[in-house]
Amino acid sequence: MCPIGYVHNTFKEAVFDEKMYSSISQIVLKEELQDGLKNITDFSKVYVLFYFDRSEGYDLIQKRRYDGKLSGVFASRSPKRPNSIGLTLVELLEVKGNMLTVRGLDAIDGTPVLDIKPFIENDLAGDGLRSP
Amino acid sequence: MCPIGYVHNTFKEAVFDEKMYSSISQIVLKEELQDGLKNITDFSKVYVLFYFDRSEGYDLIQKRRYDGKLSGVFASRSPKRPNSIGLTLVELLEVKGNMLTVRGLDAIDGTPVLDIKPFIENDLAGDGLRSP
Repeated sequence: MCPIGYVHNTFKEAVFDEKMYSSISQIVLKEELQDGLKNITDFSKVYVLFYFDRSEGYDLIQKRRYDGKLSGVFASRSPKRPNSIGLTLVELLEVKGNMLTVRGLDAIDGTPVLDIKPFIENDLAGDGLRSP
Repeated sequence: MCPIGYVHNTFKEAVFDEKMYSSISQIVLKEELQDGLKNITDFSKVYVLFYFDRSEGYDLIQKRRYDGKLSGVFASRSPKRPNSIGLTLVELLEVKGNMLTVRGLDAIDGTPVLDIKPFIENDLAGDGLRSP
């Protein structure tokens, strides 16, 4: 696993509040990967997979933010996971060269990005949860 | 990165057809991680992150399955990606011990699973794309 780019925003630590969930971030891709963005603006939302590089270790049972219930790590979005991969569905606002502007990325400044994938509305249709 | 478990199903190679998208798979977690599933049945859909262990290399521009357009790898769900992480939203049908039964997982038999995360309906609400 190797970063494809990095997050740039004003968040120096994770807060997970309304401000962060509605905030704007830039993702700056490595220049040599810029062609990988071709036609990404066909989609209004994309998944961002990132690396929780400032999270250490994990607990199998954690109090989850969603509802405060003591729950398993796989029933929560906690950063303290066996594999430190974060996943957030964000709004894609703009793409310029190797820079994406997105809204709703709950990752802090400098976070390594591992992948970007399009969100397909039909993923949620009754006939399948497909990925193109 | 280390597998948390493995996919078990009848698919020996990727076909990405209707049959695969509606198929049933088991995910068998490592026994020592079983507690991480506590309360996962609060959710009817979960994201499965997995490792494309039989995919080698990547192309920045590929013809994507979604619409046949020549597109960037980050505008496609191709397995040939800089980091070989797959992501599928599946229906969670049953959990027994360390085994999950899911529908719609487009990963082949033996695929290493990297993470499981709950899908929250409100992720798609207008007020945020949040992850709890």
